[in-house]
This record gives sequence, structure tokens and C-alpha cells, in this order.
Amino acid sequence: MHRILLREVVIDAPDNVFTATRDFWSSALLAEAQLVHDHPEFTALVDPAAMSWVGLQNVGDAAPRFHLDIETDDVNAEVSRLVGLGATRAAQGRTWVVLKDPAGLLFCVVPHESPWFQQRARVVS
Amino acid sequence: MHRILLREVVIDAPDNVFTATRDFWSSALLAEAQLVHDHPEFTALVDPAAMSWVGLQNVGDAAPRFHLDIETDDVNAEVSRLVGLGATRAAQGRTWVVLKDPAGLLFCVVPHESPWFQQRARVVS
Repeated sequence: MHRILLREVVIDAPDNVFTATRDFWSSALLAEAQLVHDHPEFTALVDPAAMSWVGLQNVGDAAPRFHLDIETDDVNAEVSRLVGLGATRAAQGRTWVVLKDPAGLLFCVVPHESPWFQQRARVVS
Repeated sequence: MHRILLREVVIDAPDNVFTATRDFWSSALLAEAQLVHDHPEFTALVDPAAMSWVGLQNVGDAAPRFHLDIETDDVNAEVSRLVGLGATRAAQGRTWVVLKDPAGLLFCVVPHESPWFQQRARVVS
């Protein structure tokens, strides 16, 4: 038994437009952009006008996209559950797993760390 | 002076994988999929394990993608502000406007209707 919560949307922008995209979204959502310690490819938007966390990732030469982060207290169990529902594994991150949904859209299963997890996460049996 | 709130992520799936994608996300997020009245291309996920609203859109022959919805009490003023920050207009919806960010990612400015707007929306001067 573990718990899950879709906590975040990440704006994945290529290097050549990363700064413009970061500055746009921080102004758009009335938030401050802040580099994430130990993960310099990631930038957090601090206190955005948003219901969830919003981050940015510099994806180098990759195409722009949004991706979603589902947090959980059991990454392996959640990945297994989602693969059983029709997702496919795309990549292994440092502490997270990248998956694709049936349409081919990328999303990640990440360890829980948001302030909302204890209150809002749902039990998966 | 108006207010804004990023309230929703929408999973845009092509027709040929729409049912599989809808069923995957409704199971993944422990939610019930419900067609949206008057907008049959849209499906809402009712009470998902998520911090924001999550919806799906059947985009026909278009490529899969996620898009974001920013709600506001003044669509025209918000679109003007975002264009001034570097967004470009992509399309006019029935009550909403489709924009692209500097990376080319699609998002919409929509009239406010979420239960969180009164409490969580931020004032844009």
C-alpha cells in the first residue's frame, strides 16, 4: 500500500530558448525563478499563481514539452502499478523514473517532498 | 486590475489513442472520467489525486501534448499582458484564447470557474 499525488507540471525548454521561457513563466505566474540545488538543469518557480508546483527544466537539444510529476512514498511500487495500467518505462533518473503514457507523453514518478503530500496524497491499494 | 490562477493541466490525446489515454489517467489518478457538457471533446477527471484540475481533450489528428489553463476574471486583459511578456496568439476558442510561450508550448487563458479562484487567484496590476 502506498500513496500518490500529482504535484507538479514541469516546463521543458530547449537551451536556446530556456532563458526567455523561464523569464516568461516567472513573470506570467508572478513568481521568482530559483535554481534547484544539486540539480542545475531544474529551476523552481517560487510561490507561483498556481494550484500546483511549477518548475522548468533545460532540456538541451530536446524538443519543448510540458511533463508531469507524480510524487509517491514508494517509487518502485508506483512505477509497477502504472506500467500495469499501460505506461512504458522511458528512463531512470537519479531518484525518479520517467514513463510514457499510452499517447507517448512523458511523466515522472518522483519521491515525495511537497508540503501537500501528507494531507492530499491518496492511498493506492 | 485582474486576477489569475494556473488551475489545470490538460492531456491532449489523438483520437486513435484517446480512450486508452483517458482510461490510463483516470486509473493512474484514482479518478472518474466524465464528459464535459457542451464541450464533448473535453473529459474531466473528477476528484483526481492531484493538486490541480486535470482534464483530457480529444485532439483528433493532432499530436499528443499536455497544455495548461490559466484562469482569470478578465481574459482580454490577461491575454494582452501575456503577449506583452512574450507569448503569441495561436487561436481563439469559444470563451478562451490559445497562446504559445517562447518555447512554442500551448496554453490557454480561460474564464474563471474553479472553486479555488476566489481564494487562490493573484492580483495582476
